[in-house]
Amino acid sequence: MADSTTKNCLAISGGVGGAKLALGLSHCLPPAKLCVVANTGDDFTHLGFKICPDLDTVLYTLADLNNKELGWGQQGESWNFLSALESMGGETWFQLGDRDLATHCIRTQMLGSGASLTEVTRHLCEVLGVNVDLCPMTDDHVATIVHCEKEDSEGGEKTIEPMAFQHYFVRDRCQPTVTGFSFEGMDSARPSDKFLAALESKNLGSILICPSNPFVSVDPVLKLPGILEAMKKSPAPVIAVSPIVGGQAIKGPAAKMMAELGMPASALAVAEHYQGRIDGFVIDEADADLKEEIQGLGIPTIVTKSVMVTLEDRISLAEAVLEFADELAS
Amino acid sequence: MADSTTKNCLAISGGVGGAKLALGLSHCLPPAKLCVVANTGDDFTHLGFKICPDLDTVLYTLADLNNKELGWGQQGESWNFLSALESMGGETWFQLGDRDLATHCIRTQMLGSGASLTEVTRHLCEVLGVNVDLCPMTDDHVATIVHCEKEDSEGGEKTIEPMAFQHYFVRDRCQPTVTGFSFEGMDSARPSDKFLAALESKNLGSILICPSNPFVSVDPVLKLPGILEAMKKSPAPVIAVSPIVGGQAIKGPAAKMMAELGMPASALAVAEHYQGRIDGFVIDEADADLKEEIQGLGIPTIVTKSVMVTLEDRISLAEAVLEFADELAS
Repeated sequence: MADSTTKNCLAISGGVGGAKLALGLSHCLPPAKLCVVANTGDDFTHLGFKICPDLDTVLYTLADLNNKELGWGQQGESWNFLSALESMGGETWFQLGDRDLATHCIRTQMLGSGASLTEVTRHLCEVLGVNVDLCPMTDDHVATIVHCEKEDSEGGEKTIEPMAFQHYFVRDRCQPTVTGFSFEGMDSARPSDKFLAALESKNLGSILICPSNPFVSVDPVLKLPGILEAMKKSPAPVIAVSPIVGGQAIKGPAAKMMAELGMPASALAVAEHYQGRIDGFVIDEADADLKEEIQGLGIPTIVTKSVMVTLEDRISLAEAVLEFADELAS
Repeated sequence: MADSTTKNCLAISGGVGGAKLALGLSHCLPPAKLCVVANTGDDFTHLGFKICPDLDTVLYTLADLNNKELGWGQQGESWNFLSALESMGGETWFQLGDRDLATHCIRTQMLGSGASLTEVTRHLCEVLGVNVDLCPMTDDHVATIVHCEKEDSEGGEKTIEPMAFQHYFVRDRCQPTVTGFSFEGMDSARPSDKFLAALESKNLGSILICPSNPFVSVDPVLKLPGILEAMKKSPAPVIAVSPIVGGQAIKGPAAKMMAELGMPASALAVAEHYQGRIDGFVIDEADADLKEEIQGLGIPTIVTKSVMVTLEDRISLAEAVLEFADELAS
């Protein structure tokens, strides 16, 4: 593994699954060699706060502040703000913990004073002691819109309702049937300088697509203008880790979305989704039987234990993926 | 007391002391007969939140949500937002409780959507079950500026530093020596419609100046354009309750300010400060010996137990003051 640990690694992450692998990578690589780019398509403004769910999940995970029970937010969290807000008839569908609120407050203040989201994220990393280079995919506004099927009240005509991501994801608990996605602001968004710099680095050894939702966590990052071209130009192999294991998503609505979009909820379908954009694919032991078929798509594939329960699991997967990058590069 | 309970009462209040008397009054009068106007000169924007300390103290007191130990904020409060903010290097000199934050959040949101502070206050009263008519002195921006003496580092030349009220009051804990006050925005501020309507009501039976700081809680209200004239025009007597008892302020920097401004810290000096603006004065039993001298200023004065420790104290003082108003009106 000489190569992969002396060369830089760029990890593209959504929330929980991505954060787990990012933490594993942070144990395998010196901080200066790892850049984690987080999806910001889920970001939204709520109760006056600018909230960046994926950035915060990665931030809290790398700072060892993440709430392991909930899978989001901070550990040792309390909910008195929300409870007071509820007693005053406020909007409480989005769970904002008292400690978590401090992050949103600092971010909102800094953005209001003219700082970029990259600068805010660097500041939050510094004050929380995170020395991995975590950055947003863009400093511009990009909003993931989930297109949902809506039946009229008589159960007849079906129409498509575009829904802001957090409304679909949190407020409506992923219950609506998904028909597709669009990304507000994507055409005019510019990838963040750090993202571009990491991608264009001569010393880049691997581009890893973490086991995050392909449609709403990874695609917003890959669809940013210039990103696919820069990835193709880079000598570093692009490797995706399947977020689908044994036909199930480890967390979140990926499998449900795939079924609704008319594709099988399988690691194979994920590989097909990424086909043409990746140089290698990582599947779990539970999906070993799919390896041949995925390789048949022209995508070199490895089988490993990809379900990350313990810290050791996170580190082992990170090691396996970095080793795979070395193999693909050689 | 037939008159004072069938007629309306307008109470002018700062924070804690005023809130105590307002609560007493709310036990003596039907809600529709009581209007409480709170000082907003202390209001400020902090961490992006619009904070109205006096309005909130009265609101929480009337809603029986006030923190009796601290004398400000909500009961059953937690401080996890602040603790997280501190761990991230945020500004923590102004204590923002987790529950309290919900009030500021709702207020900031509503103001941002174009609601007036009067409308916000009415909403907060409604959701917290307060049926007394609580309103801000103005919907416009007025900021109390405390002029403080500042010695240069060599201890020589003294200069005057204007300081935002909460910086003087909370951040610097009233330590700087005060030389005077000014009120930003006062000349162009308009008293709130509710305040004016209460003051101009034909059925007004009493105008009460609660035992609040004369300089930074009451003066901002009285100095609003048109207020003194409207008070003079009203047939209702204006009665002030001394916030100084036995040469001490029950709470806050009133006595210290008086000493620094070169006046004795006494109920007599408070009466002199209000001379020409009030028709009656209420002093504590501890200051009974000052009654004659105050009456010598041409201000009818009563002596009663004005230190409010229990709810009964609050109600007794309210009854005494309303009775005094009846006497003065007859």
